[in-house]
Amino acid sequence: MLRETQIKEVPQMKVHGRTTKCREPLTLFWTAGGFECNVTGSEFWVELEVTYDVYEPWFSYTVNGDWVGRQMLQKGRYWVPLFRGMSPESVKNVRFYKDLQAMSDDGSSYIHIHAFRHDGAFLPVADKALKIEFIGDSITSGEGLIGAKQEVDWIPMFFSAVKSYAYQTARILDAEYRVYSQSGWGVHNTWDNNPGGALPKYYQQICGVMPGPENERLGGNQQHEFADWQPDFVIVNLGTNDAASFDQPEWVDEKTGASHKMRRNPDGSCHMDDVRVFQQAVKDFLGLIRACNPRARIVWCYGMIGIDFQMYICEAVAAYAQESGDGKVSYLQLPDMTDESVGSREHPGYLCHKQAAEVLSGYLKKFIE
Amino acid sequence: MLRETQIKEVPQMKVHGRTTKCREPLTLFWTAGGFECNVTGSEFWVELEVTYDVYEPWFSYTVNGDWVGRQMLQKGRYWVPLFRGMSPESVKNVRFYKDLQAMSDDGSSYIHIHAFRHDGAFLPVADKALKIEFIGDSITSGEGLIGAKQEVDWIPMFFSAVKSYAYQTARILDAEYRVYSQSGWGVHNTWDNNPGGALPKYYQQICGVMPGPENERLGGNQQHEFADWQPDFVIVNLGTNDAASFDQPEWVDEKTGASHKMRRNPDGSCHMDDVRVFQQAVKDFLGLIRACNPRARIVWCYGMIGIDFQMYICEAVAAYAQESGDGKVSYLQLPDMTDESVGSREHPGYLCHKQAAEVLSGYLKKFIE
Amino acid sequence: MLRETQIKEVPQMKVHGRTTKCREPLTLFWTAGGFECNVTGSEFWVELEVTYDVYEPWFSYTVNGDWVGRQMLQKGRYWVPLFRGMSPESVKNVRFYKDLQAMSDDGSSYIHIHAFRHDGAFLPVADKALKIEFIGDSITSGEGLIGAKQEVDWIPMFFSAVKSYAYQTARILDAEYRVYSQSGWGVHNTWDNNPGGALPKYYQQICGVMPGPENERLGGNQQHEFADWQPDFVIVNLGTNDAASFDQPEWVDEKTGASHKMRRNPDGSCHMDDVRVFQQAVKDFLGLIRACNPRARIVWCYGMIGIDFQMYICEAVAAYAQESGDGKVSYLQLPDMTDESVGSREHPGYLCHKQAAEVLSGYLKKFIE
Amino acid sequence: MLRETQIKEVPQMKVHGRTTKCREPLTLFWTAGGFECNVTGSEFWVELEVTYDVYEPWFSYTVNGDWVGRQMLQKGRYWVPLFRGMSPESVKNVRFYKDLQAMSDDGSSYIHIHAFRHDGAFLPVADKALKIEFIGDSITSGEGLIGAKQEVDWIPMFFSAVKSYAYQTARILDAEYRVYSQSGWGVHNTWDNNPGGALPKYYQQICGVMPGPENERLGGNQQHEFADWQPDFVIVNLGTNDAASFDQPEWVDEKTGASHKMRRNPDGSCHMDDVRVFQQAVKDFLGLIRACNPRARIVWCYGMIGIDFQMYICEAVAAYAQESGDGKVSYLQLPDMTDESVGSREHPGYLCHKQAAEVLSGYLKKFIE
Repeated sequence: MLRETQIKEVPQMKVHGRTTKCREPLTLFWTAGGFECNVTGSEFWVELEVTYDVYEPWFSYTVNGDWVGRQMLQKGRYWVPLFRGMSPESVKNVRFYKDLQAMSDDGSSYIHIHAFRHDGAFLPVADKALKIEFIGDSITSGEGLIGAKQEVDWIPMFFSAVKSYAYQTARILDAEYRVYSQSGWGVHNTWDNNPGGALPKYYQQICGVMPGPENERLGGNQQHEFADWQPDFVIVNLGTNDAASFDQPEWVDEKTGASHKMRRNPDGSCHMDDVRVFQQAVKDFLGLIRACNPRARIVWCYGMIGIDFQMYICEAVAAYAQESGDGKVSYLQLPDMTDESVGSREHPGYLCHKQAAEVLSGYLKKFIE
Repeated sequence: MLRETQIKEVPQMKVHGRTTKCREPLTLFWTAGGFECNVTGSEFWVELEVTYDVYEPWFSYTVNGDWVGRQMLQKGRYWVPLFRGMSPESVKNVRFYKDLQAMSDDGSSYIHIHAFRHDGAFLPVADKALKIEFIGDSITSGEGLIGAKQEVDWIPMFFSAVKSYAYQTARILDAEYRVYSQSGWGVHNTWDNNPGGALPKYYQQICGVMPGPENERLGGNQQHEFADWQPDFVIVNLGTNDAASFDQPEWVDEKTGASHKMRRNPDGSCHMDDVRVFQQAVKDFLGLIRACNPRARIVWCYGMIGIDFQMYICEAVAAYAQESGDGKVSYLQLPDMTDESVGSREHPGYLCHKQAAEVLSGYLKKFIE
Repeated sequence: MLRETQIKEVPQMKVHGRTTKCREPLTLFWTAGGFECNVTGSEFWVELEVTYDVYEPWFSYTVNGDWVGRQMLQKGRYWVPLFRGMSPESVKNVRFYKDLQAMSDDGSSYIHIHAFRHDGAFLPVADKALKIEFIGDSITSGEGLIGAKQEVDWIPMFFSAVKSYAYQTARILDAEYRVYSQSGWGVHNTWDNNPGGALPKYYQQICGVMPGPENERLGGNQQHEFADWQPDFVIVNLGTNDAASFDQPEWVDEKTGASHKMRRNPDGSCHMDDVRVFQQAVKDFLGLIRACNPRARIVWCYGMIGIDFQMYICEAVAAYAQESGDGKVSYLQLPDMTDESVGSREHPGYLCHKQAAEVLSGYLKKFIE
Repeated sequence: MLRETQIKEVPQMKVHGRTTKCREPLTLFWTAGGFECNVTGSEFWVELEVTYDVYEPWFSYTVNGDWVGRQMLQKGRYWVPLFRGMSPESVKNVRFYKDLQAMSDDGSSYIHIHAFRHDGAFLPVADKALKIEFIGDSITSGEGLIGAKQEVDWIPMFFSAVKSYAYQTARILDAEYRVYSQSGWGVHNTWDNNPGGALPKYYQQICGVMPGPENERLGGNQQHEFADWQPDFVIVNLGTNDAASFDQPEWVDEKTGASHKMRRNPDGSCHMDDVRVFQQAVKDFLGLIRACNPRARIVWCYGMIGIDFQMYICEAVAAYAQESGDGKVSYLQLPDMTDESVGSREHPGYLCHKQAAEVLSGYLKKFIE
């Protein structure tokens, strides 16, 4: 007999991803944000409430660790079936993933979780021994993991939490993970020179990148409680958009008229003043990450869409380590995408993410005793 | 501006899989049955009508050839969004796949397609130069392609049209394909000795394996018009369940009390009388396939779940060819699943299906000039 | 201090491959024939005596199981260094492989092993738990495993024992193995219709395929003592040349004027009378193999250069099993070579042999408890 | 009819690797040093003169680009057969590779090439459009590419020119290449803190790393004529031994009593004074390479045995580029060896070298129009 249970009455449920303490409903902000249940019974539904203006959220879910479904979500509050017909007595692990990143261009784009409909009992979901936070841009948001090579539209359909290098790395290492990422953003500015699109600015908030009153209402602007979830590793995969901005026109603030541009010299090389500004942003961000995560090993990763800025990044990471005396920070090059491993929208595809996960997890293993 | 168009008003739509001529609505019977559209516009929805008693259908779909979504279907008539936010002027190819096989244990399990909601125009979908029919059992129904290794429930969630060897072979060869398959069934009887579960018995009907008045009403019992879609290749992947039935108890017809069993000798070998009956069924089926598909090359495939019956099958195929003088029939062994390539429910997983598709498409290429 | 030891004084040495009991010297007849030693000391040489008229032998060797050298051999009796500079106290496993098949076109082509020069002590080489005999043609002789794709010369350089599917299968299963093979030969006749080139004719001799007085002198014509080395598996990989002979002109015996040809019908199909003769030869050979190897499982393999004759072979194997009641014989299709896996001389390359070894070893494992 | 031709009479022969202008005989100094001929005829031998005290040279060779043989060389002057029995009219490409590095611990270890014995004619070997110089340590010397995983002896048998990342990269890019490498050496000192083992010291000589009067006599100490062979790319793969030296005891000069040691701080971190010395050595070497190769792109590679020193190296490369204004220098991380890709002596095996060649060639392609 199916019955409905509000999620606040399911303490056994585990919440993934940065969010508030609210459970009436639970709001999912970030890529890979979601819930995880161990549940008996033959059937299982989730009650969602979905809002958006432009960019509709998608979700994927796994049953017993294997991906079984993915769908576009409509607006409204409604029930979605996740499994049915299963052996009632066995314990099923269900993990729900927000496939779409926090969509800073649409202040209304959210998934909320209200309740479960089911005929079983909930069992606790154990914490994993290892925790990893991934900080990144479109690569970490899984942009291009779904879709044909020829696709060019920047739409939610082509973003995927599942199968990304972050997801795969966590699987290989049997780790919990969280994603803090924005497509097009960088350490110092966006791919098109907008200095507002700098990930470090919002790092201390739950989800400060989402604009507008709805985020205010939901608490996304609140301070994030780092103490509640201290990662063993913080992976930063940024720099690709900062590098790209040197080849883009200046960005002009429509309100103030102020403009910003990372410059190249007449000979095509990067203007070193701007490189130094970028490097200072790298160093500052590392200091901030360290302050928020005192015991984590921090690994700056780069390279899945080329290594043009590698030496500048590596130099900045080395300088931070040297100047701060921080011995738990390092740099790792990830595999570049190739004609074979590219996905849609000229972004890394599954194969490239798989190669990156192998390299990254192999590297992290050296620090796990 | 979104508008609704009944599918009968979309002659450009291509229908895949055996079905009737009815388009009010279009009924999907078989694995990989579905529709395909080339459509402009930014947004695209499909109106489904879904019925079932026990086994709910699932569907997958591709956009421009790449898989983007898969979901369990609820009962009722409702709209499902397939894409939105895309560049309006570009032509999008959308292919909808019934993931679940014709579910002969549930006479109510159907997907019907009524209409599209969209803001573009439909363009013709060209026929492909090559056509392939796949005849098979659970392997061809994609059972086990989805789901964790430990899964044992026989439920729709673990069946998948997309990613099977049939799907992949068609992709490699750029072919249209149809699937005629039933999990547990064989050439002569089911895995548990039920002589009713013999694929040849229903080969000439559109979908005779579905029971009851609803199938009668929908026309599944009608004769299939082979002339409308003549395949270049007919792939038969049967024998696994016939072989298994030698190790199962006798099957007793509850109505008549009659029983049936494929027997083993005291020394463990198969009783040759029963083997000969099986072999005759193979030969008869080949004759029937030939009668229905005069110009097709027929390839009997076997081996993805072991090759125990290989010599018996090969012998029967050879005997058919010799006795009939049919020079366009041959036998092909497919890769056996391994610990690495197994999927859920002890069935071949994606890797095994991929290997099978490579072997099969490589073999078929030799016959394509 | 290096010293010389005649091999007859080294009872710890293990001999691989069919040969006589003579150890003054040891004669190597077949592909992969050779010796194996476990030896201490820093340095190790072997004294060879090499003869040939047309086709010079080559050898490969492994140290501790890894291939380290391969070279063409000159005529004469001389010392060849195998290792030097190694830690004296450790035990080194050295395995010497004749890379060239028994060269039936050159009655003088032999490698003889006389003595070792060394500064250590010999330890016993344990027998392996599993023994496999491989019977085959050019594929099993490793023709085409070495050399560029464009090569067409039929010369010893392009034959290799090491890396063949036989070698790799034995490695995967940790088995001892012997090879009985002739390039161009078949079950009933050679690729060019010579009925003299039938492997079964010489199966009971040590090496009856080698012609002339030298083979007489060396004892190659003596009866092989099957009891001394009873394999667990006999792998027969034949049929490719028999199939090819249907497309070749008749063969005329220069001495008697008699001719022989496997025929095709006007419609291109094989003449069934000739197919039946071939099939009888298959059945007779299986009976002979069984008589010589009472407890072995016999697996007839086929397919690395196409599967044209698969149904005929499978039919014959099934008929033999049925008529004889022999339950330990089966048929296995091996992976066909592709543009990617082809080697030199349009023969399977390393990749194809690797794939074949994986399929074959996976199959054999099912019979090993 | 075989005839002997002194190599000085074969102007069509191409010489690979740094060497003198002497051709009576040609002396091979470095890994992958050798000759290349395009020759007709059925048979081909080379007359070698081999000397050594401790470390015997090995060679490998290819025919038409495919590896066919590898053997340990004895002392003395003698003929070695490379091919025979080939179609006389076809042109065969033969490439002879010194498998062993310049062995600075054995001042007598050389291969000299005197003459060819053959029955054909020589044709010119065209220069390739692309030239690459590889500078490195044991990794670039191919140490560990041959031999079982358990091997620990530091002996020539386990060094290989063929199959290394340098060889493979050159193959993928269809480039000529030269190797300048020493196992155990670094930019500033050896793995065990010997400051004499610094590759930059000898970069301007043909082969200054070889000691003693024989090298003097052979001309290895002469200045290398960089103008004769200007590479398009210089790949430097150094740093692994410099990093290791921080964990080794001090090195004491037996003659002077002077000692040297790269130091760690009490907390385990590297002493930055010593790191700065190392970094200055990197910068100085880059300047020297640039001076000798004005138009080459220089890529500093690192990572096949861990990336411990990556940030220091990257920082130094970046500093060199910035200070010198040299825009054609960059840094590339290569794949780390894993349990699967390790070879013998805890060095990268073939798989790791293959992965490195794929990454490196993929990167270099971006600079080739």
